[in-house]
Order: sequence, then C-alpha cells, then structure tokens
Amino acid sequence: MRAIVPFKRERAKSRLSPVLSGEERSEFAQAMLRDVLCALSGSGMRIDVLTTSVSGAMRANTENVVVCELGLNDALNQYLDSMVEHSEIEPVIIIMADLPLATEEHINEICSRDSDVVIVPGKRGGTNVLFLKDPSRFRVDYYGTSFLDHIRIAKDAGLSIEVFDSFMLSTDIDEPGDLIEVLIHGRGEAAGYLRNLGFEVCADNERVELRRRGNG
Amino acid sequence: MRAIVPFKRERAKSRLSPVLSGEERSEFAQAMLRDVLCALSGSGMRIDVLTTSVSGAMRANTENVVVCELGLNDALNQYLDSMVEHSEIEPVIIIMADLPLATEEHINEICSRDSDVVIVPGKRGGTNVLFLKDPSRFRVDYYGTSFLDHIRIAKDAGLSIEVFDSFMLSTDIDEPGDLIEVLIHGRGEAAGYLRNLGFEVCADNERVELRRRGNG
Repeated sequence: MRAIVPFKRERAKSRLSPVLSGEERSEFAQAMLRDVLCALSGSGMRIDVLTTSVSGAMRANTENVVVCELGLNDALNQYLDSMVEHSEIEPVIIIMADLPLATEEHINEICSRDSDVVIVPGKRGGTNVLFLKDPSRFRVDYYGTSFLDHIRIAKDAGLSIEVFDSFMLSTDIDEPGDLIEVLIHGRGEAAGYLRNLGFEVCADNERVELRRRGNG
Repeated sequence: MRAIVPFKRERAKSRLSPVLSGEERSEFAQAMLRDVLCALSGSGMRIDVLTTSVSGAMRANTENVVVCELGLNDALNQYLDSMVEHSEIEPVIIIMADLPLATEEHINEICSRDSDVVIVPGKRGGTNVLFLKDPSRFRVDYYGTSFLDHIRIAKDAGLSIEVFDSFMLSTDIDEPGDLIEVLIHGRGEAAGYLRNLGFEVCADNERVELRRRGNG
C-alpha cells in the first residue's frame, strides 16, 4: 500500500487571492498538505508527494518527493506505470493536497473497502480521493467531471467501484467561501494557520460570512 | 421513531430564480421533498411534514401534514414539546426537505447510531439532519452556524454527540450551482425533473457548468 499526493506549490490556490497574499497562499497550501500527510501517516504506508519542480518540493520527514514536470494526469499515470514496472501489485491511494479536513479514520476506512476502486467525490464532479487496488488496470483522468470519467474508466475495465460519501473529503479548498468550512470543521494546521491570521466565521440569522480581524 | 420534515412551499427556493421560474421552483421543491420522503419511507417510521399553511401542504400517501405558522425554530420546538407531552420517549429525525441526494441507507445509518444526538453538517455551518434519541432534552436553533449551536446545545445538556459525515447529505439545494450536484449524483425525482427541463452539466478541462438546452 502506498499513497501519492499531488501538490502544486507555485502559484498555488490563486482563487484565494481576494483574501490571502501570495506568500500566505503558499504557506496555507503547505499547511493543508501537512494535514493530509498527517492523516496518511498513521497508516504506516509509503507516502510520495508528487510535485512539479525541485524548488516546489517541501522538506518533510515522513514522505518522499517525486518531481515530475508533466501535467497532473500524465504525471500520475507515469507514476502508476512505474509502480507496475517495479513491484508486485500494490494498492495506491491518490489524495489531493487541498483536503485539510481529511483524517486518519477516513484513510483507514477507504483503504479497507473491498472494491477494486474507491472514489471520493469532490464538489462539481471532481475526484478528491481515488483508491486503486491494482494500479495496472486504471488510468486517471482528472479535471472536468472527473468523478463521472473515473467511474466510466473503472466500468470499462471491469472493475468494481464504490463511492465513498464524505462531506469532509468533498471539501477541497479553492475559494474564499471554502475557508469557512476549514474554520468550522478543521482541527489541523490549516485551520490553525487561518485562525492565526485573524480569520473567523461571523454568523447572524441571515448569513454566514468569512471575516479577517484587522481588515475592517 | 418518527421523522419530521420542515417544508416551505410558498416562495420556495427563491435563490434559484436565475435558472427556474416560480412555478418550476415550486415543482422542484416538491420533487426534492418526495425524494426525502422516499428515503424515509423504507424505515416504516411515522413521517410528519411540517409546513406553514394549508395551501402549502402537499398531497401524499405516506406522510401526515402538520401545519404551523410559527418560524422554523419555534415550530420545531413546539412539535418536540407535543411529542414529549403525548407519548413515551420516542426518537425523532429532523431532516430538511431540500436534500434530494438522501437515501434510505443514510437514514438507516443515522438512526442506528448510539449517540444521543447525531448531527449531519450542511455547507457553511448549517445543520441538514438532526437525530435526537430523546427530544425532551434538546431545543433546536437553526439558521446561522447552527451546526456549532446544536453541538453546544447538546454538550450543555450533557448529551453524547456524533457528527455524521456525508457529502450527499451536506448538499442542500439553494443556488444554481447546487443543481450540478443533483444532476451528477441524483437518482430520484428532483434529478429527473431537472433533466426533463433540459438541464445538463457541461464540462471541459477548465470548468464545470450548468446549462439548459433550448436556453442558448
């Protein structure tokens, strides 16, 4: 069993620019990555972080850094190919780096399912986590409605599929409104980072809003 | 065990007005309600639909209609009071009517949990489903960040709490973008209603969008 975590550090999370500076976005992206690595670390599996350049690699103790300049799909499929070439059939979990509400329990539950493919939907048809019992029988196809594409790919390959239904894992962080979920449900580094910056959730009966103290 | 489903038919789902006419919003709201009632119906429990006026009540075979002109919180707390007055302690599940991705499996799982209170978070701090083992020991407080409020209320009452983590149940339908989730994941009447109106999800690598055929 191993995990691969695609991580983009350069120009990371640009849609958060209305509320976070470039440096803050980079730090926040790394805090989210550390939350994901923390969720994975309890399982004892090998963890690879897939990133696009050496400068974008982060220092860490528990994971390996795999540098690949290809786009996400080509990089992941090349990674899956290399797994198949170099080892016995080994299951792999592909988990995005912007899922700060992921927990060790989620990872354990996903990896203990019986199906050939376990897919965790993100919002708007995305795929946030993908567990493959046998990586040699699957090609990834992210972007667009990848949830539907991955189900089709699994069906075409004759693989059994299970949808893992989780609000916390559906919550990938792209837009300012998503930070509300991190502040309400988060217990990790990403939530702590936002709170240290002064972010809070303000609610009256009508609306729930993100605010940053000191920013008026 | 019984279920209560608050349902607002008049001026329902006004934030969908950019994509649905008033009549369509009303019909869509009823289709979503029927999906929720369908998810509940397998359990054999008594189902009450709580609505604000007789004209807003819908005809159905499996549920009772409870008319109350109070606001949501007062109406629900009055309902819980009436349960306590008229019966032995009976667990109750409060489920919103705009959760068209709810399934019988969700309901069974929630109702089989051991905790005194099971809470299903919605987006932005909302509460989409609330299961109360003993309604006499809890008061609801919807709107705002009701998820946090309900956890506090349960803790203050010394009740054990469990958070039920579900993307499908977190998906309450308020805005046009939410219809994308219904089209991708829905199997019930609400999804069918949207498809019959010509709605579809269009995806390229960059964006996932809602479109309506015949509307340019």
